[in-house]
Amino acid sequence: MKKLINNPQTVVAESLRGFGRAHADLVRVNEDPMYVVRADAPRQGKVGLVSGGGSGHEPLHAGYVGPGMLDAAVPGAVFTSPTPEPIFEATKAVDGGAGVLHIVKNYTGDVLNFETAAELAEAEDITVRSVVVNDDVAVEDSLYTAGRRGVAGTVLVEKIAGAAAERGDDLDAVTAVAQKVIDNVRSMGVALTACTVPHAGKPSFDLAEDEIEIGIGIHGEPGRHKVPMATADEITDQLLNPVLEDLKLADGEPVLLFVNGMGGTPLSELYLVYNHARDVLENRGLTVSRSLVGNYITSLEMQGASVTVLRLDEDLTALWDAPVNTPALRRGL
Amino acid sequence: MKKLINNPQTVVAESLRGFGRAHADLVRVNEDPMYVVRADAPRQGKVGLVSGGGSGHEPLHAGYVGPGMLDAAVPGAVFTSPTPEPIFEATKAVDGGAGVLHIVKNYTGDVLNFETAAELAEAEDITVRSVVVNDDVAVEDSLYTAGRRGVAGTVLVEKIAGAAAERGDDLDAVTAVAQKVIDNVRSMGVALTACTVPHAGKPSFDLAEDEIEIGIGIHGEPGRHKVPMATADEITDQLLNPVLEDLKLADGEPVLLFVNGMGGTPLSELYLVYNHARDVLENRGLTVSRSLVGNYITSLEMQGASVTVLRLDEDLTALWDAPVNTPALRRGL
Repeated sequence: MKKLINNPQTVVAESLRGFGRAHADLVRVNEDPMYVVRADAPRQGKVGLVSGGGSGHEPLHAGYVGPGMLDAAVPGAVFTSPTPEPIFEATKAVDGGAGVLHIVKNYTGDVLNFETAAELAEAEDITVRSVVVNDDVAVEDSLYTAGRRGVAGTVLVEKIAGAAAERGDDLDAVTAVAQKVIDNVRSMGVALTACTVPHAGKPSFDLAEDEIEIGIGIHGEPGRHKVPMATADEITDQLLNPVLEDLKLADGEPVLLFVNGMGGTPLSELYLVYNHARDVLENRGLTVSRSLVGNYITSLEMQGASVTVLRLDEDLTALWDAPVNTPALRRGL
Repeated sequence: MKKLINNPQTVVAESLRGFGRAHADLVRVNEDPMYVVRADAPRQGKVGLVSGGGSGHEPLHAGYVGPGMLDAAVPGAVFTSPTPEPIFEATKAVDGGAGVLHIVKNYTGDVLNFETAAELAEAEDITVRSVVVNDDVAVEDSLYTAGRRGVAGTVLVEKIAGAAAERGDDLDAVTAVAQKVIDNVRSMGVALTACTVPHAGKPSFDLAEDEIEIGIGIHGEPGRHKVPMATADEITDQLLNPVLEDLKLADGEPVLLFVNGMGGTPLSELYLVYNHARDVLENRGLTVSRSLVGNYITSLEMQGASVTVLRLDEDLTALWDAPVNTPALRRGL
């Protein structure tokens, strides 16, 4: 294992300390318990947005804390859910009296720990709602999940719900917007290589030199099947077709096309995948009206990519276009 | 070789097509000859900024085309200089009557081809100035270079000179600002793994399982020495110390600290490196007043990082802070 780390036990804390120092204009890092909040938290009268989950998916979630997106992010150990306490403390830290929305990726540990944190917060008279992101069409149940997993669609939920909270929507309305994104977003990913969790010290799974895993999870958990290495166009088809089958888009509908890198794949390859995915969508009569390409939710140094399609309407488009100013996503501020 | 590509011969063109479609609000891609310009080029009365070089370093340079940074980028084949013709055509396409500055990384092919392009442009009465970036302290001459190589400092030159051009500085002034950044910026990098050029099909060099290369070039060309794998803090010291010896900063001077990823290293590790580098700088009495952390100039899927320090003054700081709106760097617009 070759990694730029000092000690597998302290990677998350050391990295988060660096993150906080590099972005002190935007965020404040609390080290014990560990969470990240907007530098100006709590914002009185604004719905607070809290997300979190295991580390190793950077820039998710801490990179999305700031005006127009999350109010707080709660990182667990690498690929391990945060415990209820830091989620509860982060919820308190961002409560501005208008309630707090928890955005939870659908993994059993995350769901349970966010639920417990919500109960603790409710006991202190903070109103909490939750949404569960489950955009991964690859598998119905998996190693860490009952139901579909939450993957790259989470970034879109956080951006769009964040914009709704920023414009002053109340808790019910922000929750409804987040749920609308969840209902209209689907993703699927591929791994070309495995990744290595620092405290494990060896790759999470095995892939032969000429083999890839279609439908991979963001923790390297199994997908649909291992297949021989193929061209980018063929791989993109294998990701995009199940997404489109599930979404059942009408002719001419506007969509957001998001090609995400798993961490170790060059940006140039992501744009190449985007190019073919866009051809496929346009050939089906769809309109790609918004795009996102880059490493937004990763699996450490895994090589691979995922393709996400979100059905847009006028409101979702306006919220997507709204200003955002976070360490990892900035636009129009 | 496992890559998300269709054909090694067409990777750059296919990727650039996707890039242009994903960012049609900001850029326009010309396919033959191949270059990228701002969507609103040419800007009358504004100095035009053109950079370029071999592909494989994305988001450099095309990702930095847009208001507040470059007017054009000219990509060559992977790790191969662009020929004079596309550089000349890009220069013509962005000339708004105020002259054009070429920002060239110090590689023999780049320097020669930008020189020839400048002569062609001058023959058509376009005034061209050039600056050559040579921030890499690792080696004095190298495989592709007489003198020091141009590496991550290039991103800072493009941002700061771009801001000077955007505020209306004339060609002499923009050139002077670019040269001031070059005179005050130093970098050094490390590779944990090699990268594979698509048309070569095998890794550019060999590194053993417990070995890293200190002073690596961005094409995988040799650095100072191979050493055994060490902790992130030790590696960071080995990069930062030569940079600081060369820069000779005075006590309390403000600096910009830039930790760049080579493409395949997780963002969390870059923040961890940043955290220690910042400790070192502060322990030496320096003030880290600005920061940049991420994959801004890469070497395909190489794992590794570089550390860059730029001596700041009031004008450079203001230009760094100025709005920028490009696919890969956005702030304050």
